[in-house]
Amino acid sequence: MPHYPSGMTVRLDLNADLGESFGTWVVGDDEAMLDVVTSANIACGFHAGDATTIRRTVAMAAERGVVIGAQVSYRDLAGFGRRRMDMDPHDLTADVLYQLGALEAMCRVAGTRVAYVKPHGALYTTAAVDEPQARAIVDAVAAYDRTLPLLGLPGSVLLRIAEAEGLAVVGEAFADRGYASTGHLVPRSHPEGLHTDPEAVAERVVRLAVEGTVVSVEGEVVAVDARSVCTHGDTPDAVALARAVRSALEGAGVEIGPFVDAAP
Amino acid sequence: MPHYPSGMTVRLDLNADLGESFGTWVVGDDEAMLDVVTSANIACGFHAGDATTIRRTVAMAAERGVVIGAQVSYRDLAGFGRRRMDMDPHDLTADVLYQLGALEAMCRVAGTRVAYVKPHGALYTTAAVDEPQARAIVDAVAAYDRTLPLLGLPGSVLLRIAEAEGLAVVGEAFADRGYASTGHLVPRSHPEGLHTDPEAVAERVVRLAVEGTVVSVEGEVVAVDARSVCTHGDTPDAVALARAVRSALEGAGVEIGPFVDAAP
Amino acid sequence: MPHYPSGMTVRLDLNADLGESFGTWVVGDDEAMLDVVTSANIACGFHAGDATTIRRTVAMAAERGVVIGAQVSYRDLAGFGRRRMDMDPHDLTADVLYQLGALEAMCRVAGTRVAYVKPHGALYTTAAVDEPQARAIVDAVAAYDRTLPLLGLPGSVLLRIAEAEGLAVVGEAFADRGYASTGHLVPRSHPEGLHTDPEAVAERVVRLAVEGTVVSVEGEVVAVDARSVCTHGDTPDAVALARAVRSALEGAGVEIGPFVDAAP
Amino acid sequence: MPHYPSGMTVRLDLNADLGESFGTWVVGDDEAMLDVVTSANIACGFHAGDATTIRRTVAMAAERGVVIGAQVSYRDLAGFGRRRMDMDPHDLTADVLYQLGALEAMCRVAGTRVAYVKPHGALYTTAAVDEPQARAIVDAVAAYDRTLPLLGLPGSVLLRIAEAEGLAVVGEAFADRGYASTGHLVPRSHPEGLHTDPEAVAERVVRLAVEGTVVSVEGEVVAVDARSVCTHGDTPDAVALARAVRSALEGAGVEIGPFVDAAP
Repeated sequence: MPHYPSGMTVRLDLNADLGESFGTWVVGDDEAMLDVVTSANIACGFHAGDATTIRRTVAMAAERGVVIGAQVSYRDLAGFGRRRMDMDPHDLTADVLYQLGALEAMCRVAGTRVAYVKPHGALYTTAAVDEPQARAIVDAVAAYDRTLPLLGLPGSVLLRIAEAEGLAVVGEAFADRGYASTGHLVPRSHPEGLHTDPEAVAERVVRLAVEGTVVSVEGEVVAVDARSVCTHGDTPDAVALARAVRSALEGAGVEIGPFVDAAP
Repeated sequence: MPHYPSGMTVRLDLNADLGESFGTWVVGDDEAMLDVVTSANIACGFHAGDATTIRRTVAMAAERGVVIGAQVSYRDLAGFGRRRMDMDPHDLTADVLYQLGALEAMCRVAGTRVAYVKPHGALYTTAAVDEPQARAIVDAVAAYDRTLPLLGLPGSVLLRIAEAEGLAVVGEAFADRGYASTGHLVPRSHPEGLHTDPEAVAERVVRLAVEGTVVSVEGEVVAVDARSVCTHGDTPDAVALARAVRSALEGAGVEIGPFVDAAP
Repeated sequence: MPHYPSGMTVRLDLNADLGESFGTWVVGDDEAMLDVVTSANIACGFHAGDATTIRRTVAMAAERGVVIGAQVSYRDLAGFGRRRMDMDPHDLTADVLYQLGALEAMCRVAGTRVAYVKPHGALYTTAAVDEPQARAIVDAVAAYDRTLPLLGLPGSVLLRIAEAEGLAVVGEAFADRGYASTGHLVPRSHPEGLHTDPEAVAERVVRLAVEGTVVSVEGEVVAVDARSVCTHGDTPDAVALARAVRSALEGAGVEIGPFVDAAP
Repeated sequence: MPHYPSGMTVRLDLNADLGESFGTWVVGDDEAMLDVVTSANIACGFHAGDATTIRRTVAMAAERGVVIGAQVSYRDLAGFGRRRMDMDPHDLTADVLYQLGALEAMCRVAGTRVAYVKPHGALYTTAAVDEPQARAIVDAVAAYDRTLPLLGLPGSVLLRIAEAEGLAVVGEAFADRGYASTGHLVPRSHPEGLHTDPEAVAERVVRLAVEGTVVSVEGEVVAVDARSVCTHGDTPDAVALARAVRSALEGAGVEIGPFVDAAP
């Protein structure tokens, strides 16, 4: 397992999608995940997250000092925000603002704040390539709070537009996903699209933290510019995987911490 | 038409329910109403008001210096929030917070703020008599911002609990509704339940402003403790009626202005 | 364990609430439950059940010859239909018709039909005591198909009105719930409100099938007029409990079968 | 104004989108439109149409002998079904079935039936070009009732796939829209994209009925294979326009009638 040269400090954020239950429907073990991650992308009610769930998840995150980001989405409960929608950018900006504010209220009463923004599901993948939708998200963030960083795919249209607008951006890597030598994710259906062995995943994340690289499905070493690593929160072994990743990072001397402060 | 004694200044707020369109469905002439009223109860998306509508309505209110209140509701688009729901108070508090925050985001990007809270429809009438639901609303407001006044029915359980909690409360009267000698509204179905003649409505509101009374359906003079008068926004003649009321008040020397400042 | 006198045939239906997942949110193990029960109360989309879930559940029920009932509800996904709503009866009738038809389409393409109706959650408990809401449901069923039985609480207002209207009614008992000597359910919060031991539950259901009685929390033997027994589908041990009940009934020589035919 | 050669009978259907109100939000004058059109595309609740609205609209159509079609849509109330969604075809088939059944229940209690299917809004335009989505709709109709015709754009992928599947198809023209010489509609934003003069619209529809042609925006005569003409129901002058069209068609001796029978 790689180790960073003595004298250097490597720092990495661990993020996960949380607060994705809805009413009686429960998904994931948010409390356990909040003991592992340093940033929580909390659902804002459009793809998941009723108000009570959001409030409770925010409170649990705040208690633990986990930084809270707005996981904004298309308005699509039935599809869990996983279906691209051809939205008017003006409407998308308003929908993002609405979600930011709703989450902010829960943060305010828990003594914290929305500290970053990360699009969810189909909005994430669409904003990575679609300029009008990416710009609509950037417009919302810029109007709401120009200090909020956007968390997203390194090299995506979203991060490029956000940077051009003067916003802070943070690239993320995916702990359990396979990468092509181009630096893009390979589909989950690819034989190496999804890594499930905790040890293998942990090793990949340590390499990423220390060397800034992943080994692609073609066997090449590829640079990935990520200050945060996404660990999924809704798979059965999510918590075990996240713990393995965290433990391996700590073992390798990597400092684990958020990319932005909870306080403004 | 009554006139207040020289030397005294009488001040009254005019409020209306606005931002109640949803997607392609339009209701009311918000822009015209915003030229007449001094406080806008803006829908927050649960009974009406998509994000784009809310944002536009807030912007129009902010441009005119109209004070913005959160018109919070049960989550019931199909019923326009007009059906009582037996909600768990804990869930209701979270739903109110969610709506407050969503509206606040639109206010923030328009350079203003949510300055008061008024429940809508069935939540309004329920919170006037039901202690757990009233308390749930008060809990949300107290947790969110203890300086926000609650606008509601004079003598209601909601205002009583809010006052006991140390929140500011503002009673409102209804410009076009008939009152019983008990001070309660008579049903709309009552022969004098709904006044539609602009002149008669205007005269009633002037009396209310100057003398603090209405003439009940039984013919008695009844005291009504209201610093704001609600003019409906969604009837065909809403704008004409509101203008008649405003004009009559001005003619009677009543100062028309909000009960709270737009700025914090 | 009681046994029915030789020569008599006792027959009982086992029903469960199924199809209550929504989009990515999964609840219960519908496939396993469908191997145990003889009647499936399938969610119709208003409190749970997206179209794909409903279609799949109906197909699985049809394959197994399990009879399908419409589990109609208030329109309340966030509250899972567990919050009473003060609906206009005319609207409630339309909502029930809408749900009946939606489920019927899934039955049609699976070669079966909606064979009975059972209200869900708060609509179930409301229609047990509230005449206008009970009548609204009966009106829907009578207009849609006068041959459809209503499954509900013995002695409830719903069943009484349905019978008076000439509809067939079927009373149900609850396998795991405690009864008062009045014949009413005691709250779940009561020390004996909820039975979780499979053996104890099985014994209660056998007694119910064979003798038509339950032992109340006060220790008295109480008659319960039920041709169907509801086994919950969403608790962790739901399948094990249902299997224990079925096995005990079979061991006691009780014939287990639906109260109505799948075919019209 | 053209007139068809003596001895020939020309027959044309007039259709309109109806039942598109939702709760308190009213759009269009459905009752007046039902006195003019011969086929009603009735919203099924996914883009518009609460259950009460659907039931009332169906009843009014049935009283007048207007044939009822299911105007199926994406699940998108906030966007009125006008935003393309990248749906899984399997989910789309289920959603179409759900809507067909819901509308069918209202037809059944009104003594009529769903007699055809027409996709709405973004689903209409998507299914005109997108094979998986078109096939998903065709799959639903084929599974539900192979005798139901699909009403859509002549030459569209939807109608081509439906025909290949052995379903009946009916092409429609748009009374007030401009056509390119290719036979395609020009955008509404085109100077001649939208005709609003009742006389001009009426003349275009008569030509379409009698000669089967329109004059394109380039001035050419273009064949349009349409047995039905769509008149919009939600513009302020919709009723006047539809009446003008009907009156002109009658004056030209065109027989106006549905393309399918209300009875099966």
